[in-house]
Amino acid sequence: MIDQRKLPCRKTYVVCKNYPAVIRAIRDLVIRGAPAIGVAAAMGVALGALKIRTRNRDRFEAKLDAVCQEIVAARPTAVNLRWAVERMKQVVTLNGDDTVEKLQSILVAEAKKILAEDIFINRAIGRYGQRLLKDGSCVLTHCNAGALATAGYGTALGVVRAAAEAGKRIEVIADETRPFLQGARLTAWELMEADIPVTVITDNAAGYIMQQGKVDAVIVGADRIAANGDVANKIGTYMVAVLAKTHQVPFFVAAPLSTIDLSIITGKEIPIEQRDEKEVTHFQGKQTVPHGVVAQNPAFDVTPHRYVSAIVTEKGIITPPFKAKIRGLFASG
Amino acid sequence: MIDQRKLPCRKTYVVCKNYPAVIRAIRDLVIRGAPAIGVAAAMGVALGALKIRTRNRDRFEAKLDAVCQEIVAARPTAVNLRWAVERMKQVVTLNGDDTVEKLQSILVAEAKKILAEDIFINRAIGRYGQRLLKDGSCVLTHCNAGALATAGYGTALGVVRAAAEAGKRIEVIADETRPFLQGARLTAWELMEADIPVTVITDNAAGYIMQQGKVDAVIVGADRIAANGDVANKIGTYMVAVLAKTHQVPFFVAAPLSTIDLSIITGKEIPIEQRDEKEVTHFQGKQTVPHGVVAQNPAFDVTPHRYVSAIVTEKGIITPPFKAKIRGLFASG
Repeated sequence: MIDQRKLPCRKTYVVCKNYPAVIRAIRDLVIRGAPAIGVAAAMGVALGALKIRTRNRDRFEAKLDAVCQEIVAARPTAVNLRWAVERMKQVVTLNGDDTVEKLQSILVAEAKKILAEDIFINRAIGRYGQRLLKDGSCVLTHCNAGALATAGYGTALGVVRAAAEAGKRIEVIADETRPFLQGARLTAWELMEADIPVTVITDNAAGYIMQQGKVDAVIVGADRIAANGDVANKIGTYMVAVLAKTHQVPFFVAAPLSTIDLSIITGKEIPIEQRDEKEVTHFQGKQTVPHGVVAQNPAFDVTPHRYVSAIVTEKGIITPPFKAKIRGLFASG
Repeated sequence: MIDQRKLPCRKTYVVCKNYPAVIRAIRDLVIRGAPAIGVAAAMGVALGALKIRTRNRDRFEAKLDAVCQEIVAARPTAVNLRWAVERMKQVVTLNGDDTVEKLQSILVAEAKKILAEDIFINRAIGRYGQRLLKDGSCVLTHCNAGALATAGYGTALGVVRAAAEAGKRIEVIADETRPFLQGARLTAWELMEADIPVTVITDNAAGYIMQQGKVDAVIVGADRIAANGDVANKIGTYMVAVLAKTHQVPFFVAAPLSTIDLSIITGKEIPIEQRDEKEVTHFQGKQTVPHGVVAQNPAFDVTPHRYVSAIVTEKGIITPPFKAKIRGLFASG
């Protein structure tokens, strides 16, 4: 996988040869973005399965379960991680008669399938979502919900890409997205590579830019969506949503169904990962906060559904009220 | 003056021996904060006056005017800069019969008086403002409106200091304040020195923190206040104000009368300084935005008066509607 900590200055790769390496990569933000984490998790389960040295099916399953538990614990907020691991476990259950060897190859195939499906799903999200963007639109986005956050193409940026591919002139304003600067480093990088005009601003400037009437739409990804449409996403997303409502700018969320967690009724129940304060107090090794002062570093926030104008999924676009429509997305198979 | 670009890691001083050095210090953010800029500007005028080599009063005034114009142009948004320079010019007008030599010493004395008055004014702001903060309050602030932004004590942080001096337990949450990190570097530093508990967050986390119900009040400084109460302050202040209103948290502005510009009817007319994009694209020399991607770097935004719960001045606290009350502050002499 591309080491996203090094972008945009260097494009280097991290090769994970076993599942603990995958867990480290997820935890240390070598790879991030809910769908990308899901794919990496599936690959991690497959790698873990290949290393289990037993022909006894029960022992294999017990060991695989332990691997799965470790992987799920890598990061708490993005539900795609759990979703992907559950899907891998289900494959084992569904193939109850197969040998361990056969199961191992089935798991590898399933992980590859999840990877391929993710790109396919992103393209579907893009196809539906691009209808929301008019020719000449200026779109503000927060964090990176692009090709780098997925197996490729992107969710929020997939919508932007699809609009551009449909011949629309789209301009993007990217919040830099402190503390990890996914917007400045990753969104700006992949849009530049895609020849889509992009301007980076500090997160602080989003209000000013909206006041100037420059933003036609906000589009972001999601790390987990509750059954009522509340959206957990990168810290600061909620602020952008409140500003969008204040300025009557539509606020769109683009995410695959695997991001929706029907077991979570409202966003209040979504666990918010608190990351190391050093990500705030230090910048690429340089200290910015006086020694002895504490910092708080929540990685996500929850945007209540009343701020969300539409959710774009691979099965189409839903608008408020979300609850029944979200259930409907799953009911339709 | 303390070189604020180097804090909190190093406490070094920049000595300005002539007015171009003062202009550079203001423009390059060695010194920042509206009241501090005002004091520095007055000192700059005095330094400029001392270097004028003529005994002819008319020629002296013409040369001093040129110095004043250059100083006023150093930064466009903070009105205290212009206010201080105008006050220095007025001293010349008021002493029409004096010799150049006498005028020079009067100007030096006036600059020192502006310095001394600023601390006195801040203490008055603190004394009034601290009534707004209850014992046990958690106060969120943006940027640095502290001792470092003034001749000493601070405006917004002066209110916090006064509350602490009155025996109240006050806890501060400091937005780090990108791109220059005045919150992380300066507010955290001076509160730590004052033994007032402070936690630093990214600007993105302010919404999350308010959602958790942790913030009892927001208090910020100002760079210019229009006649209707609209407030220009550090970029991102408007976002915090919108969030405060959303969460029914009072939003207080602490500023001396010299920050109020009665010639400006609404905030829309306040010029917003656009600073070098490198402050966004580079971090202490390190590039964070891909080469070739543009950034926008507005240094301030305007918070409309409807978001402001109260303005604390050295003459007392005013609440909405502001217009007549602001005029009243000046009428009462």
